[in-house]
Amino acid sequence: MDIEQHGSFRESQADYRWDGVGVHPYKEEGSAPFRAISRQVLFADADMAADLRYFEMAAGGFSTLERHEHMHAVMILRGHGHCLLGDAVREVKPFDLVTIPAWAWHQFRATRGEPMGFLCMVNQLRDKPQLPTAEQRAALAADPAIAAFLEGTP
Amino acid sequence: MDIEQHGSFRESQADYRWDGVGVHPYKEEGSAPFRAISRQVLFADADMAADLRYFEMAAGGFSTLERHEHMHAVMILRGHGHCLLGDAVREVKPFDLVTIPAWAWHQFRATRGEPMGFLCMVNQLRDKPQLPTAEQRAALAADPAIAAFLEGTP
Repeated sequence: MDIEQHGSFRESQADYRWDGVGVHPYKEEGSAPFRAISRQVLFADADMAADLRYFEMAAGGFSTLERHEHMHAVMILRGHGHCLLGDAVREVKPFDLVTIPAWAWHQFRATRGEPMGFLCMVNQLRDKPQLPTAEQRAALAADPAIAAFLEGTP
Repeated sequence: MDIEQHGSFRESQADYRWDGVGVHPYKEEGSAPFRAISRQVLFADADMAADLRYFEMAAGGFSTLERHEHMHAVMILRGHGHCLLGDAVREVKPFDLVTIPAWAWHQFRATRGEPMGFLCMVNQLRDKPQLPTAEQRAALAADPAIAAFLEGTP
C-alpha cells in the first residue's frame, strides 16, 4: 500500500477534554494575575508553524490582562462571558471569533456563572506578554465599561 | 489611553456562519473530486503563519481524497461522519481531533445524514495536494473498510 503515514485521532471526551491531551496550569503560578483557568495544547507541531490551544475558565475565572507583539486568533468554544480587546468590552458566545492584534490589551472573563472555554491559535515564534503598569491599568479603568469588566461585573 | 490596536470581533450566526466571513466553494469546480462542501476562512493573517478554515459538507458530501507534504490539524466542529486517514477509517464526532501528517491519504465524509463541519489549521507555506492515481486508489480500496468508505457506506 502506498501509505507512508498514519496520523492520529484524539477522541473528544465529556466536558471539553481529549484523549491524550493533558490539562495544565494556564501559566506558572505567581507569574501573572489570573484565576481558575486551565490550558490544553491540542496541536503543536513545528510543521504547522502555529499552535492551537484550548483555554478554559471556571465560572468567575479570568485570563491575564496582557499585551504582546504577536497576534492571537480566538474562537469561543464553550459558554458565555466577556472579553476586553483594546478599548472594547464585548459579550462572547460559542463560535464567536476574536482577532487580537499586536499590542492590544486583552483579557477573557467567565462572567456568566458557567465555564467559558476558547481555542487560541498563535504563531510558534512569539514574544513574551507584557503586564500593564499601574498607570496603564488606571488608564484602561478610566472607561467605566472597562472598569466594570476588570472588577468582574461587566 | 495606551491602546494602539482595536482588533476585531466576528459574531457567530446560526448554522455555523460568521459575520463578515464569506462562504466559498471548497475548490475550483472540476479541479478535483468533491461533493457538497463549502469553505470559510476564519483567520488568515501573515503574522500568524497558519490559517484557520472551516469546511462544511452537506449530508452525503465529501472532501477530496488527497495527500500532500504539509500537515493538517483538524477539529470536528459540527455533526457526525467518517474520516479516512492513512489506512484507518474512523467515525468522528464534534471536537474530535485529527492530525494529518505529511503524505497521508485523507478524506472526510458526512455519512450520517447530517451536515458535518470541521476546523482545519494549516501552515501558510504549503504545497499543492496530490490526487491518487487509479493504482493508488485501487490499492487503498483493497482494504474492505476503505472500499466501503470510498463508496460512502462505511
